[in-house]
Amino acid sequence: MSILVVGSVAFDSVETPFGKVDEVLGGSGTYFSTSASFFTEVNLVAVVGEDFPEEHMQFLRSRNVNLAGVQSAPGKTFRWKGRYGYDLNEAHTLDTQLNVFETFMPELPAGFEECEYVFLANIDPELQIKVLNQVRKPAMVACDTMNFWIEGKREALLKTLRLVDTLLINEGEVRQLAGEANLVKAARSILAMGPKTLVVKRGEYGVLMFTEHSTFAAPAYPLESVYDPTGAGDTFAGGFIGYLAATRNHSEANIRKAIVFGSVMASFTVEDFSLNRLKQLELPEIEERFRKVKLLTEFEGIA
Amino acid sequence: MSILVVGSVAFDSVETPFGKVDEVLGGSGTYFSTSASFFTEVNLVAVVGEDFPEEHMQFLRSRNVNLAGVQSAPGKTFRWKGRYGYDLNEAHTLDTQLNVFETFMPELPAGFEECEYVFLANIDPELQIKVLNQVRKPAMVACDTMNFWIEGKREALLKTLRLVDTLLINEGEVRQLAGEANLVKAARSILAMGPKTLVVKRGEYGVLMFTEHSTFAAPAYPLESVYDPTGAGDTFAGGFIGYLAATRNHSEANIRKAIVFGSVMASFTVEDFSLNRLKQLELPEIEERFRKVKLLTEFEGIA
Repeated sequence: MSILVVGSVAFDSVETPFGKVDEVLGGSGTYFSTSASFFTEVNLVAVVGEDFPEEHMQFLRSRNVNLAGVQSAPGKTFRWKGRYGYDLNEAHTLDTQLNVFETFMPELPAGFEECEYVFLANIDPELQIKVLNQVRKPAMVACDTMNFWIEGKREALLKTLRLVDTLLINEGEVRQLAGEANLVKAARSILAMGPKTLVVKRGEYGVLMFTEHSTFAAPAYPLESVYDPTGAGDTFAGGFIGYLAATRNHSEANIRKAIVFGSVMASFTVEDFSLNRLKQLELPEIEERFRKVKLLTEFEGIA
Repeated sequence: MSILVVGSVAFDSVETPFGKVDEVLGGSGTYFSTSASFFTEVNLVAVVGEDFPEEHMQFLRSRNVNLAGVQSAPGKTFRWKGRYGYDLNEAHTLDTQLNVFETFMPELPAGFEECEYVFLANIDPELQIKVLNQVRKPAMVACDTMNFWIEGKREALLKTLRLVDTLLINEGEVRQLAGEANLVKAARSILAMGPKTLVVKRGEYGVLMFTEHSTFAAPAYPLESVYDPTGAGDTFAGGFIGYLAATRNHSEANIRKAIVFGSVMASFTVEDFSLNRLKQLELPEIEERFRKVKLLTEFEGIA
C-alpha cells in the first residue's frame, strides 16, 4: 500500500566531531521517502528551488519515490546548518533558511489523495491539516512536530493531533507538549489529545512506544561509528510506516516489529553523512540487523 | 550461595523535585545487601559510627544480612548530601563527610573468606584489592567505581580490574575510563582491561551489557513516579549478583535474566526515598515486574 509524505527537501550543512559536509542532500521528506522506499511505494509532496540538482531527483526516482508532488518554485531550496558535539543526541542549529519553503502550499497531484498511509513530517501544523484534508480515506496517519510548533502554534497542532493515529516525537518534545516531566504521565496526557499511539524517540537510547494498554521499549542498535544523527528520526518514521504500509497489519505485535524496523533503518542513516549510507543499503542488511536487534534484547521468561 | 559485599553504610540527605529527606539510611553496602537479600544470603563488610542507630542494624538483620563484618568505630557515620533536578539521571553532590570511612580498614570475619560471590562497591580500589585478597576462592567477582577513582587512583583501579569478572559502572564512567566517546569502542577497550563482562548503567534508559561476543540491552521499567534515584545502581548490582549467586549459573542466558532482575530491583528503589520501597517489597512483586519487563521488550522475529 503506498504512502503519502509531506515534508522538506533540503540542503544540509552539518558539522560533527567526525567530519563536516556542506549543502548535502537532506530534509525530512527525503530521509523518510528513502527509508520507506525499502518497504513500499512512496509519494512525496514537497518543494525545491531552482538550485536543486537533477542528480538528487534522479536518486529519489531510483528509489521508486513518486515525485509528482514535488513542486519546483522560483528561488532557493530550503537550507539547514547545524552542529553536533560529542553528545550526538542534541543538534545545535546554526542557521535556517526557509527560502522556497516559506510560501510552500502543499497540493496533492491526482492519485495522491487515494494513499492510505500518510506521514506528516515536521512542518507547520496548519499545512499538515491542509494536506490531510485532501486525503480521501486514510487507514493510518502519523505525524511529527517540534518545539517551535508546540510553543508557537499550539492550537493548530492540537487540531492536527485530534486527526492523527500516531505521533512520533522526541523525549523533550513529549515533556514540553504535555507540560509534565515524568514520561509515563506525559505519554498518557498526549494519548488523551488524540493519537492512539505515541512513539517517543530517544536517540541512542532507542524508542518507547505507548498505547492506552501497553508500552514497548526498543533499544537503539549500538554502533561503533556514528557520524551524523541528522535525519535519524525521519528515517525511523520511514521504516516504521513503510513496514506497516507493506504489511497492512496494525496489530500490536506488528506495530512492535515496525518500530524495530524503524530503529534498524535509523541505525544505518547515522553511520554516514547525508543519505550516503542509505544509498548503499541492501535489503539483506536490513534483515540481518533486525535479527541482531532481536538477539540484543532477548532474555528468557521467569520459570 | 552467599555473597560478600564491601561498601558504605551511610546517612543520606537528599533533595529531589518531589521531596526532601534528612539523614536517612543509605550507602552502597546497604542498598546492595537489601536488594541481594531477596535472592540469597548476604555478608556485609562496612563501618558505622557511634551515632548509627540499632534500628537500622535491626532492619538489615531482618533481611537476613550477616552484620558480623560491620565494624563500629569511634566517631560519626559516613554522610552524603545531594540534590537532583528534574533530570534525575544526574546527582549533584552538595557535601560528603567521610567520618569513620576515612580510616576504614576492611577485615573479613571468620567464614566470610569462603564466600564465592563478591561485590566490591564503589570504594577506594586499594581497599577493594585488600578485600579481594582475603577471599579464598571466589566464583565471581564484580565491582563498581566512580570518576573520583578513575581520575585519582587509576593504577590501583586497573589492578582491581585485572582481578574482577564483571565491572558495573555508568555510561559517563565508561567513556572516562576508556578515554573514548563511542560506547561500543569504549566497552571493547574496558573488556581488554580484565573484566569479561561490562555492565553499563544508563539510569532511566536501562542497561547495556557487553561481553567479548555479545551485547544485551535491557530497558529500565518506565515508572510513573520516580522520587529518588539514590541507590539505584547498588540496588541493581544487588539484584544482578543476588540472582546469579542464587542460581549459580553463569551462562549468557542466565546473566541476561540476572540483568533484568537487577533492573527490576532498581525500579522499586527509585519509587521512594531511602530504602522505604525495598522495606515494603515482597517477592511476588519482583516476579510480576520481571514479567512486565518481558512484555515491555518482546517482539516477534523476522519471518
